[in-house]
Amino acid sequence: MAAILRGSRNVWGRIRHVDYTLVSSRSMASKTQVGFIGLGNMGNPMAKNLLKHGYPVIATDVFPESCKELQELGAQIVDNPAEVADKADRIVTMLPSSPNVIDVYTGANGILKKVKKGSLLIDSSTIDPAVSKEMALAVEKMGAVFMDAPVSGGRYAILAVFRRAHLNGQEDASVGAATSGKLTFMVGGVEEEFTAAQELLSCMGANVVYCGAVGTGQAAKICNNMLLAIGMIGTSETMNLGIRLGLDPKLLAKILNMSSGRCWSSDTYNPVPGVMEGVPSGNNYQGGFGTQLMAKDLGLAQATATNTKTPVPLGSLAHQIYRMMCARGYAGKDFSSVFMFLREDEKEEGQ
Amino acid sequence: MAAILRGSRNVWGRIRHVDYTLVSSRSMASKTQVGFIGLGNMGNPMAKNLLKHGYPVIATDVFPESCKELQELGAQIVDNPAEVADKADRIVTMLPSSPNVIDVYTGANGILKKVKKGSLLIDSSTIDPAVSKEMALAVEKMGAVFMDAPVSGGRYAILAVFRRAHLNGQEDASVGAATSGKLTFMVGGVEEEFTAAQELLSCMGANVVYCGAVGTGQAAKICNNMLLAIGMIGTSETMNLGIRLGLDPKLLAKILNMSSGRCWSSDTYNPVPGVMEGVPSGNNYQGGFGTQLMAKDLGLAQATATNTKTPVPLGSLAHQIYRMMCARGYAGKDFSSVFMFLREDEKEEGQ
Amino acid sequence: MAAILRGSRNVWGRIRHVDYTLVSSRSMASKTQVGFIGLGNMGNPMAKNLLKHGYPVIATDVFPESCKELQELGAQIVDNPAEVADKADRIVTMLPSSPNVIDVYTGANGILKKVKKGSLLIDSSTIDPAVSKEMALAVEKMGAVFMDAPVSGGRYAILAVFRRAHLNGQEDASVGAATSGKLTFMVGGVEEEFTAAQELLSCMGANVVYCGAVGTGQAAKICNNMLLAIGMIGTSETMNLGIRLGLDPKLLAKILNMSSGRCWSSDTYNPVPGVMEGVPSGNNYQGGFGTQLMAKDLGLAQATATNTKTPVPLGSLAHQIYRMMCARGYAGKDFSSVFMFLREDEKEEGQ
Amino acid sequence: MAAILRGSRNVWGRIRHVDYTLVSSRSMASKTQVGFIGLGNMGNPMAKNLLKHGYPVIATDVFPESCKELQELGAQIVDNPAEVADKADRIVTMLPSSPNVIDVYTGANGILKKVKKGSLLIDSSTIDPAVSKEMALAVEKMGAVFMDAPVSGGRYAILAVFRRAHLNGQEDASVGAATSGKLTFMVGGVEEEFTAAQELLSCMGANVVYCGAVGTGQAAKICNNMLLAIGMIGTSETMNLGIRLGLDPKLLAKILNMSSGRCWSSDTYNPVPGVMEGVPSGNNYQGGFGTQLMAKDLGLAQATATNTKTPVPLGSLAHQIYRMMCARGYAGKDFSSVFMFLREDEKEEGQ
Repeated sequence: MAAILRGSRNVWGRIRHVDYTLVSSRSMASKTQVGFIGLGNMGNPMAKNLLKHGYPVIATDVFPESCKELQELGAQIVDNPAEVADKADRIVTMLPSSPNVIDVYTGANGILKKVKKGSLLIDSSTIDPAVSKEMALAVEKMGAVFMDAPVSGGRYAILAVFRRAHLNGQEDASVGAATSGKLTFMVGGVEEEFTAAQELLSCMGANVVYCGAVGTGQAAKICNNMLLAIGMIGTSETMNLGIRLGLDPKLLAKILNMSSGRCWSSDTYNPVPGVMEGVPSGNNYQGGFGTQLMAKDLGLAQATATNTKTPVPLGSLAHQIYRMMCARGYAGKDFSSVFMFLREDEKEEGQ
Repeated sequence: MAAILRGSRNVWGRIRHVDYTLVSSRSMASKTQVGFIGLGNMGNPMAKNLLKHGYPVIATDVFPESCKELQELGAQIVDNPAEVADKADRIVTMLPSSPNVIDVYTGANGILKKVKKGSLLIDSSTIDPAVSKEMALAVEKMGAVFMDAPVSGGRYAILAVFRRAHLNGQEDASVGAATSGKLTFMVGGVEEEFTAAQELLSCMGANVVYCGAVGTGQAAKICNNMLLAIGMIGTSETMNLGIRLGLDPKLLAKILNMSSGRCWSSDTYNPVPGVMEGVPSGNNYQGGFGTQLMAKDLGLAQATATNTKTPVPLGSLAHQIYRMMCARGYAGKDFSSVFMFLREDEKEEGQ
Repeated sequence: MAAILRGSRNVWGRIRHVDYTLVSSRSMASKTQVGFIGLGNMGNPMAKNLLKHGYPVIATDVFPESCKELQELGAQIVDNPAEVADKADRIVTMLPSSPNVIDVYTGANGILKKVKKGSLLIDSSTIDPAVSKEMALAVEKMGAVFMDAPVSGGRYAILAVFRRAHLNGQEDASVGAATSGKLTFMVGGVEEEFTAAQELLSCMGANVVYCGAVGTGQAAKICNNMLLAIGMIGTSETMNLGIRLGLDPKLLAKILNMSSGRCWSSDTYNPVPGVMEGVPSGNNYQGGFGTQLMAKDLGLAQATATNTKTPVPLGSLAHQIYRMMCARGYAGKDFSSVFMFLREDEKEEGQ
Repeated sequence: MAAILRGSRNVWGRIRHVDYTLVSSRSMASKTQVGFIGLGNMGNPMAKNLLKHGYPVIATDVFPESCKELQELGAQIVDNPAEVADKADRIVTMLPSSPNVIDVYTGANGILKKVKKGSLLIDSSTIDPAVSKEMALAVEKMGAVFMDAPVSGGRYAILAVFRRAHLNGQEDASVGAATSGKLTFMVGGVEEEFTAAQELLSCMGANVVYCGAVGTGQAAKICNNMLLAIGMIGTSETMNLGIRLGLDPKLLAKILNMSSGRCWSSDTYNPVPGVMEGVPSGNNYQGGFGTQLMAKDLGLAQATATNTKTPVPLGSLAHQIYRMMCARGYAGKDFSSVFMFLREDEKEEGQ
């Protein structure tokens, strides 16, 4: 395992395929029980979306209080991942980091203790793709199927989908910016199982994209978020510079968005208060995607880049900037607050 | 002047307005002679576009051979900027850098030696906004009007417009990516004169945007190009990392473009050979916007950021990366060749 | 002038030498009156050192209150630089930035209004070397001599020299670290005049080094401070990382200092509280060399690098980090406080 | 193990101490057989130094040809690490990276298959400190003692020590710069065993420093090399900038070295050809410490920084620069060749 963790390039793609005759035993009938493990900020609305689409849900979380809301909505709550695996042959996991994933799958009360042959295990956590590969190997040995399926767009987008489902199409303007088709599951694993995964994931996201072998879902997520962070910091620097040079921020955003400077952070999630509505910059950077989570994802990007000897100078600096922000009290604010971090406080000036 | 160059923030916007009664003397009748100074890679197709739209053109360039093609197309060629100013009261200048602009306006045979009161002088060079302000002050003292109107999109886009005019709408697929509405003039100066400037500029670009006081056109251009450089290097790092993690480049580009990593460099001008058609990455990074020119624009961004005490960490690193590329032989290649610069040459590996 | 400011490489070294027959008229007898312009944090102790070494001083400053202390110590105070130039033929200027220098030399009441032929004008300000060249040209036209002689070590070192003079050799342990031979004047200008400059400068600094033609004093200062900033941030990152990895800070400093990581910031001015005595890190980062001043010097380094197309990736990032620190309230703290800026506040952690 | 690898801060220091009554069985008599595993560029001269100091050596390497020279000098060569452990109770390992260390200790023919209780295992490889902790735990379970003892100064310094031993004090001027006391072993592990480790290590290096608990040797090494890389790139940028500003390189080096810009890379290992003798810059960057090895060490620094959430902006950029250099053909050159990488090739200029 250690060798895998330290990721020589050779490991990519060495997953041997499971015996798919075993898969036939899985209950494919729609609307049979689905397991859900990890009911945090992200997992909670995801599991609700499953319920909303008519799936019976059997769930667990290390924090019992996290389960209450879902229980009230009709989900069955059990004690640990092994019990979930005992009762459901399709399970979604949504956990904060690699060690949690390892524990939920391979721990003393982990899924693998009771997983049924042919089960479909979908991990939507964002973790190191090398750990996804480890898990896939372990799951495969039990005759089950593992897919990595991290989600792009964060809690903000998940909530938006949830809200849209609630509103029956009455688009909530305040979240419009983040919801127009941006939520995406990126799925890695054997292609034969993609349709089965898509059935569940499409209840929770607008897009479900097949990326390739196990680990490529994570790879795509990590790549996207690295470029997102670069774009966000870049947009913040640029907007700040333009404002100081006398440009009106709304006009500058408009110009960038019709020019080659255009990016998601400038046209959909602008970090400057007052430029757009319905984004965290208009709400004191509350909600959205936390700086600390972005720092974590950039750490994953950095680690995979180091392991594959890939130079990522801007990605690496973006990582460091988000680390410095965490050190300076921005950990809990939306990652677009980098605009505030970079902005010179007028009262500090003079010289 | 020195004080302006070293740019305290106070200077932004202190241009006193010209006496507009003088402007009435300018020939506003469409299709009267237009002056054009600077017939290089950018100026040449721009001047041709003016001819194509029916304007008599009177032009000059320090290199006589640059004038031949335009002369054959019917332009009148004169010896120096002063002579242009003697014969035309609307003049467009397109020059490589600040010292050239200063010389063409204020030099021994400069425009200001013979400029007529009420003339409209439009500078489309990309230079330091502080120099634009200097020029505006000097022009204003002569009773004429100065506007800065740099163009976004570079020679590539200019040529595309030219080609489109030629093709009468038959879109040339090979340049399609760069031409769909991306060419933009960013105009700074007194608002009363914007319409007059727009009349000429709209012959040469798809968008003509009013940005505010003199210098804001440059500011907008500089801001756009800084964000463009960041997006391009970020996209290159990201695509390179994804490929090394086992993702198919076309699929990765598709995923980024439907997610929050989306930017102009990923969806319109992708730097990875084979991902898109009609962009320099598909043509060995020939054509397009040269690395050296991008380095120059980033130098301007850096200087304005330093002068206004604005932190631009990614912009600054992008500048350094393009400088390193110039040092390593990429000066003449399209700026998307940063993908090749970052890509580890397989034969160098091992350890 | 503008052309010089924008610094093509050609300008380096085009100063024609002054007619040195004029210099013979200067009073070279030691201990005749010396002019001093600029009595701020740096200039004040410098002028005092001149007095202490027996030179009559005639001084001025834009803020009259800055002159009081020096007046009480026996200096003659006059109204403006022109009056200083009227009465002294050796003048030292110590000003905060380029515009001040330009004004003090070429302004309405500037030195050049009354400068005597053959005078020696020494500018110890830290400014863009291109501005030093401008000033040298203007001074030369008046038949006088200009030398740039910025000082390395900052106010801290200056004060230390002052204190040592006071203490008659009783070394003040608290400032020992910064004073053992580190204060250095870096002098650019015609070599024939170096001895004359050295006579005055050696009263104020331990080392006076001849660097070459006008502007090279500034160049050396800027280079030194860029490397200093890089070393300081690097040391801070390294000490912070080592501490988090379980190393004792004093031991780590000792190891670095006996190894290849050794630098002035690790062995003489360590940024970690408790590692060394007599440095700002032991005094809540009071005193020393302010973050804002370092940011200014790095801005100069950046500008000269951009003008000469020199890639300086770490220097550039160091500049941005000090800019960010200014924006976050560190402007007035010693530049070694970057250790605190980078250090993750424990209470912000968790995820 | 996985949890350790992913390094929460809690793991530092949780090594329980071995039962030291077992240690008494170890042959402490000097000059009894010492095992040596890994006879590459670094290990080969290290093992020779042991022989030279009178220790019988029993060695192995995956490449049999690496063993020949040592065998001729009198060492006993065996087939694999287990055999070494069977015959020697003091073993030094010197391996290229973490996976090799894991294999040599815990693999099928690894040391732990035959390690004697009370043996002293010293690993001089440079690896992730978290892996050192893993190894220490595994070794401790077998009743033996593990210490990490990476060496600073690289092959260059090792060879210098070797040569000095040969020359009987006749200092070889060509390597003088790198050898005056710079070679340092940084040792982590239980303090009670330090003296025993020191006995062997002092045959191979001038300094042997105790750093603290297991892993702190690696931590110190990684910290030193990160600061070294920052100092080297910073020195290269600074020297390059100064040269372009008209300074003589030797003079600039002298000024830096008497000022606050001073660092090991400026005063002991200057990267500019012609400034110093006996360093790789004077020998076309042959020999010394390879760019690729520096990139590897910076990758370790990056990983530990990410795991401990420590911002290392310059360290991270230094890593990326050395990665880019590897990608551009500098992998095998000394790491001071970054001066050449940054230096703009005159023929590429113009615009």
